[in-house]
Amino acid sequence: MVEAKILTNSSTSILPAKTKTTPKIFAKYRPDIMRASKKFLSNHDVAVYDMLRYSMGWKGLYEIKTSATKGKALRPTLCLLACAATGGSTKQAIPLAVAIEFIHNFSLIHDDIQDCDKTRHHRPTLWTLTGVPKAISAGNILRTTADSSLHNLTNAGIETEKVLEAISVLTKACLEMIEGQYLDVSYEGTPNISIDDYLNMIAKKTGALIRSSLHLGALIGTSNRSTINAFLSCGQSLGYLFQITDDILGIWGNENATGKPVGSDLKRKKKSLPVVHLMTQASEKNKNILIETYRKPHLSDKDINNIIDLMNCTKTKEYAQALAKTHCDKALESLGGIELTSEARNDLEELIGFLFYRDH
Amino acid sequence: MVEAKILTNSSTSILPAKTKTTPKIFAKYRPDIMRASKKFLSNHDVAVYDMLRYSMGWKGLYEIKTSATKGKALRPTLCLLACAATGGSTKQAIPLAVAIEFIHNFSLIHDDIQDCDKTRHHRPTLWTLTGVPKAISAGNILRTTADSSLHNLTNAGIETEKVLEAISVLTKACLEMIEGQYLDVSYEGTPNISIDDYLNMIAKKTGALIRSSLHLGALIGTSNRSTINAFLSCGQSLGYLFQITDDILGIWGNENATGKPVGSDLKRKKKSLPVVHLMTQASEKNKNILIETYRKPHLSDKDINNIIDLMNCTKTKEYAQALAKTHCDKALESLGGIELTSEARNDLEELIGFLFYRDH
Repeated sequence: MVEAKILTNSSTSILPAKTKTTPKIFAKYRPDIMRASKKFLSNHDVAVYDMLRYSMGWKGLYEIKTSATKGKALRPTLCLLACAATGGSTKQAIPLAVAIEFIHNFSLIHDDIQDCDKTRHHRPTLWTLTGVPKAISAGNILRTTADSSLHNLTNAGIETEKVLEAISVLTKACLEMIEGQYLDVSYEGTPNISIDDYLNMIAKKTGALIRSSLHLGALIGTSNRSTINAFLSCGQSLGYLFQITDDILGIWGNENATGKPVGSDLKRKKKSLPVVHLMTQASEKNKNILIETYRKPHLSDKDINNIIDLMNCTKTKEYAQALAKTHCDKALESLGGIELTSEARNDLEELIGFLFYRDH
Repeated sequence: MVEAKILTNSSTSILPAKTKTTPKIFAKYRPDIMRASKKFLSNHDVAVYDMLRYSMGWKGLYEIKTSATKGKALRPTLCLLACAATGGSTKQAIPLAVAIEFIHNFSLIHDDIQDCDKTRHHRPTLWTLTGVPKAISAGNILRTTADSSLHNLTNAGIETEKVLEAISVLTKACLEMIEGQYLDVSYEGTPNISIDDYLNMIAKKTGALIRSSLHLGALIGTSNRSTINAFLSCGQSLGYLFQITDDILGIWGNENATGKPVGSDLKRKKKSLPVVHLMTQASEKNKNILIETYRKPHLSDKDINNIIDLMNCTKTKEYAQALAKTHCDKALESLGGIELTSEARNDLEELIGFLFYRDH
């Protein structure tokens, strides 16, 4: 029997109070996510598992010291929160939360190789320590360990049909995510990316896994299809919101909060939303300045400031913030029509607000 | 109702007549495997699918022409053969056969990057045409497309519990395969590999997928656990047989048949079984000659002939052939105790014999 709870049902959404502090929901679920994840990577026979524990932020590798993970584990938290909000036991969704986090980290290991990124979260990326061949295998192991985790859904008491549906949803999301990463890599050689191309790419690369985190959590929590679809739809908007905010922080972020210097995405010559927007809005002359600057092997601080000046002319930051706001509103609206306890609604709105207002 | 068939049940095994020609069973299953595989890679929206069709041998890429695939599709053929031999409908095993072939090809795409191999089957490897970043994504897509194929098992009428078991078996095999590839890569920097280390590595890298091909085919074909286990056990031996024969051909193979020059594995400085055997059997002096030779950036024909001469002294070829024979016998013995139609037994014995006697 479901306990009597105060259910809220709002058709309009209001952006929650501005908060830059990490919502408490992250701390609530972290111990369970960590415990379950660590079990899967406890193999001590093959040295590659040390590499994986390093890449998860749990331990050092070779001479690199590491403190406990600073990662928020956003995706598994979304999954568990959706499960709890729809009336499920989060214990049953843990195998999915673990799989989602592993798939995310697999994508980071391979992305770092593909993008030649040498640091992540202030630490050397895996491939810089072990070489590319071993890091490719490490990523692949994490990807397949995610599949292994899903088999625990049955042990957690989820009926077989739902297990198969969950596996299918996650497989599709993973496929989209990799297609998105392929598009991102292939855009590097293409100067003219439209905003639609860009949005299609991030919907896959970043959005698919964030969307399926909420979708899968709800799938475990309830059998009510319209509720599940509401979370799916909310997750779709959160994917855009997350990546667009990331792109804003990648240029205008405060170094003290993000740990990255202003304009860091420009230094890495990323084709993030602001760059794509500038390319589509700038005069022919300014467009050529941008193209020529991006052709340089290394961008100086002056180059970066020049590009940011061009973005001021095209009101690029305002454009990106408005787009983020649109997706934030959509995410809130998606949940407006469904019944939720006031606690669940608060947690969800706080999290959505954080994804909009965050400065790191 | 199962048709009345002549069932054979032999407890001893005799190595079938020497045959180097490809058994007809490959041609029998190829059209179904091809048709089902092509459906999964028919996406025309994302250019990476062109890369995958190239890597499967189906079409050209950029300026590279390709004729129809010459690949035997060994693993999916083993899967369908085991399914048919255990009384199943091969149609039901097709989603597994496709998944197995995709996982195999995913491993080749990534292995070629990891080993810096520039050609495979007389064609440029994918990464040499597209660059490493895109080829990494291509491999990842193929890996996940394999998972997508498994969801067709339900449509093919396989009961849900068996679908989950099949997914679990394939996930474990895939994980072992990647661990094996990691070990192979990590052995490159290690001069002293024992024969046990080597056998453990190939049991994972090559053996896991071959083993699970027979295991999974039988799982679809029957519910008789001892029959399923007999195929699993046969597959385990075939994994060793396949790789050891490959290693023999990699050094003493006839260029006209294999398409690779004599000593090609030595030229690539692979640590194949003959090299590991030589290292464990050679005098200290000869061991050092081998280590020094393998340290050279490029091996000359003279270097290769010198190593082959050393292998003659340690009777390395005879050792490898005897080990292949042992596993061939074990594979045949595994099937000795189970009931099979004479047609199925003939097909299986012909295939096992081919894997022992093949010259390509």
